[in-house]
Amino acid sequence: MSDLAPLLDAIVFNADGLVPAVAQQHDTGEMLMLAWMNRDAVAETLRTGRICYWSRSRQSLWRKGETSGHVQRLVEFRVDCDGDTVLLLVDQSGVACHTGRRNCFFRAWRNGRLTTIAAVEAEPPATERRS
Amino acid sequence: MSDLAPLLDAIVFNADGLVPAVAQQHDTGEMLMLAWMNRDAVAETLRTGRICYWSRSRQSLWRKGETSGHVQRLVEFRVDCDGDTVLLLVDQSGVACHTGRRNCFFRAWRNGRLTTIAAVEAEPPATERRS
Repeated sequence: MSDLAPLLDAIVFNADGLVPAVAQQHDTGEMLMLAWMNRDAVAETLRTGRICYWSRSRQSLWRKGETSGHVQRLVEFRVDCDGDTVLLLVDQSGVACHTGRRNCFFRAWRNGRLTTIAAVEAEPPATERRS
Repeated sequence: MSDLAPLLDAIVFNADGLVPAVAQQHDTGEMLMLAWMNRDAVAETLRTGRICYWSRSRQSLWRKGETSGHVQRLVEFRVDCDGDTVLLLVDQSGVACHTGRRNCFFRAWRNGRLTTIAAVEAEPPATERRS
């Protein structure tokens, strides 16, 4: 893992040892989701080429799509200017959201109300949870 | 502000009263930056149509571009599935990053090193800080 040292050193993990990770579909630009990574999740993601987050609710590594098959293949890993956010360019298989929608940002504030703007495309995978 | 109640109620602010806000250029899909909002920042953004964040370093409202002119006009405000992230579709004037680059995610992990993949396009505005 020592070869990842320049990357890990550039990331500013918070007091909980986590950094927010934004996942974007690499070719369409679609914003898929935001989750969190710790150092181990970053290292595993780089090693395997599949996105691994840290689940804050379960307090364990969360290999995205492990149970649902809706994996995210890493295309490029980017770090922001001050290192406290990472951007994951990914290739999403199936759907990113645990509700079965393609992405998690399906509620838009329009005309004074939260409006659902995306349909459920897949059976919500019960074991695939956010955060 | 009571008319914003359904939106504010849908957002899960963390223990510090903040929610991560991802800003994306509405027409190109370019990921611009991630910053944080509190309830007041959300309300001001919706009221004015210009993005207002919460600066964690300065502990005050941060009207993006107030000093630099590099404002972000709100196009659409979205909330994710479990309410703990918001997505701002914006129209960015000038550059989003305090380094003078168009967006903050200009460091990519390529061939075992962090590579700068975007050029400085504007004079870095000294008073425009991240977070």
